[in-house]
Amino acid sequence: MAAVTGFIAGLGGWVLEAAQHGDLTTGRFFLRIEIIADTLPVARAELGRRFEVVAAEFDMTWQLTDTAVPKRMVIAVSREDHCLADLLYRWRSGDLPCTIPLVLSNHTDLQDLVEWHGIPFAHIPMDDRDRAFTRMEEAFDRAEGDVLVLARFMQIIPPGFCERHHGRIINIHHSFLPSFAGARPYHQAFERGVKLIGATCHYATADLDAGPIIEQDARRIDHSDTVEDLMRVGRDIERTVLARGLRWHLEDRVLLNGARTVVFG
Amino acid sequence: MAAVTGFIAGLGGWVLEAAQHGDLTTGRFFLRIEIIADTLPVARAELGRRFEVVAAEFDMTWQLTDTAVPKRMVIAVSREDHCLADLLYRWRSGDLPCTIPLVLSNHTDLQDLVEWHGIPFAHIPMDDRDRAFTRMEEAFDRAEGDVLVLARFMQIIPPGFCERHHGRIINIHHSFLPSFAGARPYHQAFERGVKLIGATCHYATADLDAGPIIEQDARRIDHSDTVEDLMRVGRDIERTVLARGLRWHLEDRVLLNGARTVVFG
Amino acid sequence: MAAVTGFIAGLGGWVLEAAQHGDLTTGRFFLRIEIIADTLPVARAELGRRFEVVAAEFDMTWQLTDTAVPKRMVIAVSREDHCLADLLYRWRSGDLPCTIPLVLSNHTDLQDLVEWHGIPFAHIPMDDRDRAFTRMEEAFDRAEGDVLVLARFMQIIPPGFCERHHGRIINIHHSFLPSFAGARPYHQAFERGVKLIGATCHYATADLDAGPIIEQDARRIDHSDTVEDLMRVGRDIERTVLARGLRWHLEDRVLLNGARTVVFG
Amino acid sequence: MAAVTGFIAGLGGWVLEAAQHGDLTTGRFFLRIEIIADTLPVARAELGRRFEVVAAEFDMTWQLTDTAVPKRMVIAVSREDHCLADLLYRWRSGDLPCTIPLVLSNHTDLQDLVEWHGIPFAHIPMDDRDRAFTRMEEAFDRAEGDVLVLARFMQIIPPGFCERHHGRIINIHHSFLPSFAGARPYHQAFERGVKLIGATCHYATADLDAGPIIEQDARRIDHSDTVEDLMRVGRDIERTVLARGLRWHLEDRVLLNGARTVVFG
Repeated sequence: MAAVTGFIAGLGGWVLEAAQHGDLTTGRFFLRIEIIADTLPVARAELGRRFEVVAAEFDMTWQLTDTAVPKRMVIAVSREDHCLADLLYRWRSGDLPCTIPLVLSNHTDLQDLVEWHGIPFAHIPMDDRDRAFTRMEEAFDRAEGDVLVLARFMQIIPPGFCERHHGRIINIHHSFLPSFAGARPYHQAFERGVKLIGATCHYATADLDAGPIIEQDARRIDHSDTVEDLMRVGRDIERTVLARGLRWHLEDRVLLNGARTVVFG
Repeated sequence: MAAVTGFIAGLGGWVLEAAQHGDLTTGRFFLRIEIIADTLPVARAELGRRFEVVAAEFDMTWQLTDTAVPKRMVIAVSREDHCLADLLYRWRSGDLPCTIPLVLSNHTDLQDLVEWHGIPFAHIPMDDRDRAFTRMEEAFDRAEGDVLVLARFMQIIPPGFCERHHGRIINIHHSFLPSFAGARPYHQAFERGVKLIGATCHYATADLDAGPIIEQDARRIDHSDTVEDLMRVGRDIERTVLARGLRWHLEDRVLLNGARTVVFG
Repeated sequence: MAAVTGFIAGLGGWVLEAAQHGDLTTGRFFLRIEIIADTLPVARAELGRRFEVVAAEFDMTWQLTDTAVPKRMVIAVSREDHCLADLLYRWRSGDLPCTIPLVLSNHTDLQDLVEWHGIPFAHIPMDDRDRAFTRMEEAFDRAEGDVLVLARFMQIIPPGFCERHHGRIINIHHSFLPSFAGARPYHQAFERGVKLIGATCHYATADLDAGPIIEQDARRIDHSDTVEDLMRVGRDIERTVLARGLRWHLEDRVLLNGARTVVFG
Repeated sequence: MAAVTGFIAGLGGWVLEAAQHGDLTTGRFFLRIEIIADTLPVARAELGRRFEVVAAEFDMTWQLTDTAVPKRMVIAVSREDHCLADLLYRWRSGDLPCTIPLVLSNHTDLQDLVEWHGIPFAHIPMDDRDRAFTRMEEAFDRAEGDVLVLARFMQIIPPGFCERHHGRIINIHHSFLPSFAGARPYHQAFERGVKLIGATCHYATADLDAGPIIEQDARRIDHSDTVEDLMRVGRDIERTVLARGLRWHLEDRVLLNGARTVVFG
């Protein structure tokens, strides 16, 4: 930490925000520093070159991002539109720092909504799953996507796909994980008679619904709520949890720490 | 509902509170009515006899309780005192409508605290489990307990015991069930990297940690929290969730509906 | 209660939901009953005529609503679109039981968004406030509005207007009332250094920001949040609080009790 | 920041935790660093002397605390015991890092409870308020108190007293400030018909209920709750909010920033 802040101070850089976390169980140390670019005498590439020396000395894994360049977010959806509509609204109103080069879907139900926003829509049917996921990955790469958001995509991404884009695929699961992983979580929650339901925003990994959690939230329900009520309440939780987790990811506030995350929120 | 309220109105009784719930999936109908006793012209026993006729006509399962007679609550503890201390405080301050005829424990650590409150304490070691649970059940019956609270008792109650006291044994589990059932839930929660932790107050059944849930709550944690932090935050959730669920039970606000509960909170 | 449920039972009607509340301070009694219409042998008008007799006997204030006829909701907005966009989304997805015959605004910024949804938009500039509010009231009446929602309208409704539509104008205020009434509540909250911010959905009355509260919620912030962060977090609270309160109003779950509300949620 | 972390690194010190906050409106910068003492080659006094040089260069206001020396917490109470009982429990169980050299009260109701814990109790009647507060201040100083906790003391501390102990007197107010400042906040909340009630832990200043806020929380109530229900729910909020805020203060995590606080929680 002294080395990094000393390096920045040596360049006359102004730190806007800094956060650190030492994981006592693994001995890993996490650091995130936001610098006001105008206070630096050098451009991004040169900054990286100079920092390389510091990083090498302490054997750091590091990354340098320019917040002036918004991340490219590709969205995959199925038929339900509440998460998509919310993301599009937040993007349109400037609330989410990203561009959306593409929305993918295995159905055409949401094509109109997407195209009204002036965003390209690609229909990738799931008849032949292998081919579909190959096309999907190609489309993501061609769109130069930084992050793929599964906004209620309802399809299991193949392990290889997950691994090739580790830490770059974000899913919203409609339960408070690890409770009610898998299918029909609101039905499961209703059957079990829980008193709060929730949603979970996490990185997709080969292990379904078991990826590192970015954000969760829960809300109170009671015995008078039907499965339909749970779904309605849940839609609100899902979209706020997804938006919150996604914002942190887009602002590079989420660091992977094995099966867990460090979120400098 | 018309029959019950009509019956009460016929006697000139004043309803203080009424709540109903129709379970559409099973067709069962639940009704709870609180009557101001002084407005009734008959005593409890006679009221019951008269109501029997109405109940028989509609094939009701019913129960009549006098709130002037506080329930007898037996508490079982192990070594951790946060739930016990909280229950004793609430009882002492008149906040929980019950008497406490007995506290049971497999250890003697909390004997002083219990006896300072003027409450009998029974030490039942767990060396011989069968014998221990026989003694425990005898003690509960001899104390004429209405409800047995497992305030972090940390021992698995035998199935037969659970069945003989169905709907009368209340457990506090230190996780947001069904997540992290079983042992060391805070360690499990830490490993999984969840962003909220919780606690669950439920009826104990033969099926461990799977009984009908009365109350739950959750609170936010983050990556900087150690397992010890989770335990500390969790203790606060546990005691408020237990106190809330228990109050509802003591006020006969909780009705069993199969594996679920109806809580007229 | 016995009279009402007895009346319904006498007709063979099935009660779907019933809720009651006795206000001990005023002696008023509130009752809401939802009946499955198909189980009644008479139509709505005849049901009202027959019930009139029961109501007269007990001097009830009462109302009979057909849930098959959605309420007509007129929305007034200014320039900020987060509440409007959310209401339109919920209406479009069938989540809010209403029709929207008209959206009014003192600006034209949101005209496109409204008209894309196929909803008439009326621009009423505020240059001449008296005339503007006269036009607004005429438009509301002509649209046969049941409820007028001030979805961040940012204009003070004249007292007479409020009184003529008592209990039918719903406002969302962007603070946890009574804290930070009036202008720029997020700035006020920032200055005061509160640790949670909130929003309040209430009936508009002649007394600004003091009308009966329908729903509120709050969310945690901290010292690192700027006024802009508060606004962003607050927008999410505002729209969920408004949607929740509005749903209850549209389902006739909110009863006025002087300066307070009874919400049979 | 570079200077401070560089200074620590120069001594070979290990940073356990670091947090910073830049207040953009005032230009002030706040930094809190927790160092593992054993990794430092010098004792506390010498560390302070050496750091003085760094601090002077950057014109820092600074403080050096040894977490091995628990703070001395004096508690002032009136008759209500829920906050006191909770603090005593947390202290007894090792949950709050402090010693309690003295409990002060204007009544004797809670003397037994305090003395059972082996803590000195001083009765200071309020007949002569000037004299009472002089005695109270003397007692606090004689007990070498680091912090004075008003655990529902229900008396207004004189301005001079507040000023002489600025940032060292912590009050729990039983409302979500700035709502319902002053007397009988639960009655005020009931009258206003709010849908959530809360509590506020803040530093006491000459300006009643307007001191810098350390922590707040809120919980949902509804129309069926009486003032007594509000008080009961509120007691739980009060004690958790006080305990949370107090822990942060005792761990030197709260920094004053004018009328606001920075909480490195």
